[in-house]
Amino acid sequence: MSYWLYYWPSIPGRGEFVRLALEEAGAEYVDVGRDQGAGAVADMISRGGHFAPPILADAHESASHVAHILAWVSRPLELAPHDDRDFRRMHQIQLTVTDFVAEIHDTHHPLGPGLYYDEQKEAAARRSASFIDARLPKFLDYFEGVLSRNPDSDEWSVGRRCTTLDLSLFLVMRGLYYAFPNALAEIDTPALDELTRRVAKRRRIAAYLDSERCIDFNEDGIFRRYPELDRPNP
Amino acid sequence: MSYWLYYWPSIPGRGEFVRLALEEAGAEYVDVGRDQGAGAVADMISRGGHFAPPILADAHESASHVAHILAWVSRPLELAPHDDRDFRRMHQIQLTVTDFVAEIHDTHHPLGPGLYYDEQKEAAARRSASFIDARLPKFLDYFEGVLSRNPDSDEWSVGRRCTTLDLSLFLVMRGLYYAFPNALAEIDTPALDELTRRVAKRRRIAAYLDSERCIDFNEDGIFRRYPELDRPNP
Repeated sequence: MSYWLYYWPSIPGRGEFVRLALEEAGAEYVDVGRDQGAGAVADMISRGGHFAPPILADAHESASHVAHILAWVSRPLELAPHDDRDFRRMHQIQLTVTDFVAEIHDTHHPLGPGLYYDEQKEAAARRSASFIDARLPKFLDYFEGVLSRNPDSDEWSVGRRCTTLDLSLFLVMRGLYYAFPNALAEIDTPALDELTRRVAKRRRIAAYLDSERCIDFNEDGIFRRYPELDRPNP
Repeated sequence: MSYWLYYWPSIPGRGEFVRLALEEAGAEYVDVGRDQGAGAVADMISRGGHFAPPILADAHESASHVAHILAWVSRPLELAPHDDRDFRRMHQIQLTVTDFVAEIHDTHHPLGPGLYYDEQKEAAARRSASFIDARLPKFLDYFEGVLSRNPDSDEWSVGRRCTTLDLSLFLVMRGLYYAFPNALAEIDTPALDELTRRVAKRRRIAAYLDSERCIDFNEDGIFRRYPELDRPNP
């Protein structure tokens, strides 16, 4: 099975959730944005009837929205739980990841995507402070609970094996440690930290992180390191 | 089939997307928040392993996140397209509705849900201006395209019959005309307007809108009428 991923070429962004799934599965895929440039991505958005990237296509169909893409490909990629109820629960929790990622993005863009960060720095500082005080611990506590209360596994969030949800939680934690290291140091997340280490050591993920296919976090993506938005250095 | 809906009792909010589906289908359901108060909703959030309401439960299972709930119940409620590919597309577009609703909410709460509107009025004015300039027309244009380019129907967004997605678009349009009447008057949305009239006339929806079960829009929900955030009166 071959896939075509359409996403902006210069950031990990939301495309990275899909890339990690394809990489972990060893799937054949073309990263169209990096191969052919942003124009090919823009073209696919309108041609395929999508609102925004990432878009994943196979020979027959294309899909957008990270959670929807992952629900679509997790079974063929063998990154889904076997049980149908677990599958629904995985998708549901992935949608909570979607909401969390939107709030993380909004810490540096509270006034909307149409203004540069420099045009909204003051609002970003206020939004980040309330995010770190209230929302960050609430989301992390929720995901800690998901991991520590999975009746079927001590290692994975839903069912018995590594799923696209685990890969997504791994990406979110790496991104948060990049963007908000000081805030993270104040919150206890043993299960998420253990998951992050476990995923980073998987053979294909480790090889991917080490490859040129993997784009480093940078200040154009979701997870940005603006020290003025983090807690002060301890 | 009986359902239990868990949502805050005093606002239409995100619960309304689920309510409309249950009402259109003539399903039996208990609106637990309105019946038993907000405490019963808070209890269900933690008991069921959910992050936030709305939560819908049947005798066997519970689900949260509007798009996920609607994907789960649309088939038993006969509000889903028959074709599997159409079903996936419906869910995908519903996730674009989810993103749109989050951006609509953020017009009055750009600095986060932890502060009152009065504490973020200036930021809200800036966010609303860029929302009305760029995001509102972009989303509405996208949904207009979905409706006018459905190869299977001139009336509905996906497939041949009314789905949960059509009911959701109806709610979004009603909410936008409530919150941003002046901004809406500047944008041409013939297909969405026609859909809104069509849904409002459906027997069960009309009866619901006329009943005490239906909570009016108010200034605690997603769609709020703050004239200072809308375009000025023409």
